[in-house]
Amino acid sequence: MLILITYDVNTTTGEGRKRLAKIAKVCVSYGQRVQNSVFQCDVDQAKYIALKNQLLDIYDSDKDSLRFYNLGNKYQSRIEHYGKDTSYDPEGVLIL
Amino acid sequence: MLILITYDVNTTTGEGRKRLAKIAKVCVSYGQRVQNSVFQCDVDQAKYIALKNQLLDIYDSDKDSLRFYNLGNKYQSRIEHYGKDTSYDPEGVLIL
Repeated sequence: MLILITYDVNTTTGEGRKRLAKIAKVCVSYGQRVQNSVFQCDVDQAKYIALKNQLLDIYDSDKDSLRFYNLGNKYQSRIEHYGKDTSYDPEGVLIL
Repeated sequence: MLILITYDVNTTTGEGRKRLAKIAKVCVSYGQRVQNSVFQCDVDQAKYIALKNQLLDIYDSDKDSLRFYNLGNKYQSRIEHYGKDTSYDPEGVLIL
């Protein structure tokens, strides 16, 4: 299933900037950055729980916001993108 | 249906900052800001097309990124939020 992760991290402090870097690092290890603070992670339920727990360990619930959107398994038709693209399609054809 | 809109706008120029403000203004007129550049808009198909066209008229396809995620009608169970909340539930109980 595809999980979309969006976050707002308060980076007015050094700790905040560290949290931001850690959160991005965890997200990249499970999926793909498609925008500055938006990630798409194609994971099963067990990996989703592990991913979410890692992020909840890092973030500050008073200062940061973490949102998870479950787009299910048939997600391709749910997504439209326009403009500058920073993503690649993991299931797409790799042209060598 | 709930449409999630996420965007990255290049704000290194004055025009970029203007685009960002216009994009946010349009999104707020259709729905609710839930994070800095993340909006949730509960719209029908006709409104979705109008919303999307307005945003596509504003953004710069070389510099900005616009993403639309269709979460369908039964979306409540698809969304999890942790931490600082900037949203309200339009269908939730209003406590006076």
